[in-house]
Amino acid sequence: PAGGLPAGSGAWGRRVPAAGHLQEVMLTSERYGVRRLPFSRVSDGDVAFFEQIMPGRVITNAEELKPFNVDWLKSVRGCSKLMLKPQTTAEVSEVLRYCYERNLAVNPQGGNTGLVGGSVPVFDEIILSTVLMNRITSFDKVSGILVCQAGCVLEKLNEYLEEQGFIMPLDLGAKGSCHIGGNVATNAGGLRLLRYGSLRGTVLGLEVVLADGSALDCLASLRKDNTGYDLKQLFIGSEGTLGVITAVSILCPQKPKSVNLAFLGCQSFAKVLETFATCRAMLGEILSAYEFMDEKCMELVERHLKLTSPVTDSPFYVLIETSGSNSTHDEEKLNNFLEQAMNSGLVTDGTVATDEKKIKMLWSLRERITEALTHDGYVYKYDISLPVGKLYDLVTDTRARLGPSAKSVVGYGHLGDGNLHLNVTAESYNHFLLDAIEPFVYEWTARYNGSISAEHGVGFKKKQFIQYSKPKEAVHLMQRFKAMLDPKGILNPYKMLPSSS
Amino acid sequence: PAGGLPAGSGAWGRRVPAAGHLQEVMLTSERYGVRRLPFSRVSDGDVAFFEQIMPGRVITNAEELKPFNVDWLKSVRGCSKLMLKPQTTAEVSEVLRYCYERNLAVNPQGGNTGLVGGSVPVFDEIILSTVLMNRITSFDKVSGILVCQAGCVLEKLNEYLEEQGFIMPLDLGAKGSCHIGGNVATNAGGLRLLRYGSLRGTVLGLEVVLADGSALDCLASLRKDNTGYDLKQLFIGSEGTLGVITAVSILCPQKPKSVNLAFLGCQSFAKVLETFATCRAMLGEILSAYEFMDEKCMELVERHLKLTSPVTDSPFYVLIETSGSNSTHDEEKLNNFLEQAMNSGLVTDGTVATDEKKIKMLWSLRERITEALTHDGYVYKYDISLPVGKLYDLVTDTRARLGPSAKSVVGYGHLGDGNLHLNVTAESYNHFLLDAIEPFVYEWTARYNGSISAEHGVGFKKKQFIQYSKPKEAVHLMQRFKAMLDPKGILNPYKMLPSSS
Repeated sequence: PAGGLPAGSGAWGRRVPAAGHLQEVMLTSERYGVRRLPFSRVSDGDVAFFEQIMPGRVITNAEELKPFNVDWLKSVRGCSKLMLKPQTTAEVSEVLRYCYERNLAVNPQGGNTGLVGGSVPVFDEIILSTVLMNRITSFDKVSGILVCQAGCVLEKLNEYLEEQGFIMPLDLGAKGSCHIGGNVATNAGGLRLLRYGSLRGTVLGLEVVLADGSALDCLASLRKDNTGYDLKQLFIGSEGTLGVITAVSILCPQKPKSVNLAFLGCQSFAKVLETFATCRAMLGEILSAYEFMDEKCMELVERHLKLTSPVTDSPFYVLIETSGSNSTHDEEKLNNFLEQAMNSGLVTDGTVATDEKKIKMLWSLRERITEALTHDGYVYKYDISLPVGKLYDLVTDTRARLGPSAKSVVGYGHLGDGNLHLNVTAESYNHFLLDAIEPFVYEWTARYNGSISAEHGVGFKKKQFIQYSKPKEAVHLMQRFKAMLDPKGILNPYKMLPSSS
Repeated sequence: PAGGLPAGSGAWGRRVPAAGHLQEVMLTSERYGVRRLPFSRVSDGDVAFFEQIMPGRVITNAEELKPFNVDWLKSVRGCSKLMLKPQTTAEVSEVLRYCYERNLAVNPQGGNTGLVGGSVPVFDEIILSTVLMNRITSFDKVSGILVCQAGCVLEKLNEYLEEQGFIMPLDLGAKGSCHIGGNVATNAGGLRLLRYGSLRGTVLGLEVVLADGSALDCLASLRKDNTGYDLKQLFIGSEGTLGVITAVSILCPQKPKSVNLAFLGCQSFAKVLETFATCRAMLGEILSAYEFMDEKCMELVERHLKLTSPVTDSPFYVLIETSGSNSTHDEEKLNNFLEQAMNSGLVTDGTVATDEKKIKMLWSLRERITEALTHDGYVYKYDISLPVGKLYDLVTDTRARLGPSAKSVVGYGHLGDGNLHLNVTAESYNHFLLDAIEPFVYEWTARYNGSISAEHGVGFKKKQFIQYSKPKEAVHLMQRFKAMLDPKGILNPYKMLPSSS
């Protein structure tokens, strides 16, 4: 039932055209000085073999391959000469068995919406796309459990579920392009995590094909199963380095009967925090999102995307969403909270939305910041977890450190989860600026026991910094798991694990 | 701040005396015909070594060791001659490093409340108890994140949190004795899972000591951290076979301002299911438990524990709990639902409780079934996940199959999670009856793609049946993980993984 948007079409989010203004992206290997590992090179014989398994779904045309070699941010570029589009798990198995045998490196790819350079090849890895694996297997209305192939587009799944009174437990800006398999492989967070928890709790089962082509069926569709080690967890967030996720079983919440939004202005970050504590206490179980953005973000969405905010002149903006089962009760709770927040001076300006159109408009002010940033120039992106009280200090300190060498330094994110998106823009990529930001940002984060990747993952761009958030022993154990499951290292090489040199 | 109830004192749940009436328990090895693996035997030199590391916390007295060699159900018994009570992670490290070197087998033990024979030795394994590791490290009121040692008793933690306006995200009958480390090691489910999700989502970090004594620090206290493989997940539910959990970081929800309970009678299981669908739709986000029990369960708690139910004469009883932030709203939702359920004939009798005393009384009807069963005789316990529509058919079919050879065949459980507790009692342990139940129950469960252990784990008693819920490839992969992390197999041997013979 769920069709698939063409992956890598450049549509990030439902309304977003191709990102950024940078036309030519330097090859990753040139920019970062990495060296190709001694994998085999794709031969004519290999292409002929694949063409035989999946006729018409073997792409070798350079022009056609272009968008799948470059990430959405246009920050990294590989030079793969071959993309395969399997439709079934059996085909994925056949492909990997062959590649393993032949020592051919493989880059598993979903919607190619990742932000850390994990979803595109670094050199000439074969791109294994899930774009044609977009069938829904089953949906059980009693339990709310959906089983589907890995290439289903998140937004399509959500539309399918909404017709039956349910929703997906995750939501993110890239929903119009991203694949559920990619979401799981990267342990995507997003806008609903505050309410419905992480994929580690909502994903009930996975089907995975391992590096040697063997299929691992952990596709349970039970709310509870406590028979042995939870193997699927190892693949959630492994970014395609341990196996290729081919199918997903996921627990979906009921569609809320009532959704309300409040968009508020706060005069300081301290007030943003106090507003959060107040709303968490007063809205309780109906709170479904608490997002914040600074005034610089607002300037960018206004300037580059021509959006207008009904709330103005505040150094900080807060978006609060409620989702509940009784609109009268929900509105009463929200009004009580707003009265309290206004009367106590936590909030100086604000607007409330209950109709879908206004809700979408207000959400777009927050959701489209990522897009607005790409129009501002080259973007240095950081996705940091911190104790919530320290969250904005990192933005202030980075801004002070970089001074006029940066164009914009902005902060926004999922405050309710302690997750800051720190972004720095410049007219173009500049290695000196990068050196001024890194490892400064990582050292700062480590000092407060934060995480250098709250939800974006590690991919290519963060792998050399993983030790800021993971002790040596943990990285070593990761390497042992990798060696055990993919002894030749053919799956998404150059990603996630630091080079051992 | 949290003291610890003495582990293994026999207190299961806050009001429960030592279980059952069976005085002598046959040695596990005799009953089940297992053979001891060639581990070293504890020598006087070993005892002297441990006495030097932790003076006064080395138990060798046979009488003192007795309760720690027998499980709470009195169904399995080991013959350990040594128990160690470390206070710190460093001590656990030292113990394991020594045992690994000396090839001494170790049985990690928390509150010894497990129901599958996983928490006691099978032969003479050294019991490594977390009973003295009961310190709370920190609690952050802003984020709701608790960090504590593994031996903290669940109920003590909950009491500590309640004082600060929070609760533990899990609750179970054994709360008065069970340790949080044991809860995590067994991936305990319980009564709040429906609302707050599983430990896979709420546990944010773990500290674990591996078989060779090396410590693995994954004790992040961040809501989100996406830097690499989520190693801690492998230890959640590994039942002490991969490492010893020494500390836990866990996300705790706010204490609900308003709690209501409805205890209802239904005339058929079909009505139990329809009532669930109705209440899920009408109570939405405030539904925090949906439990059911059959009339046989009610007979047992009335007969053996002298409890009285205000609701009578129904073949099925249902307990519905709501937890919310506004008592007026919550009561209105509950009343609307009850009116609907009564008017449409889903429910024929019922009572509602809002005060704490009556709430506790009603909960005890459900929570004390386990205890009542032990008074009925020897208990054959099954903890099954099934598609919710099939849940009670297994009870009916088992009852029909066993006829008068069983004393009682009862069904109850967490219906909202698709989790049935099927229990069969007999005057005493009887191998013929066991053969009539197993593998019948497992085959029945496998036919409907259920799980043979929804929340109790595998332990000693279910390990030979794991293949009913896990494909061969998954079991094989589990064995590879075990071999990698514990190459000598010293950690909780004879448990979880099927004997390879």
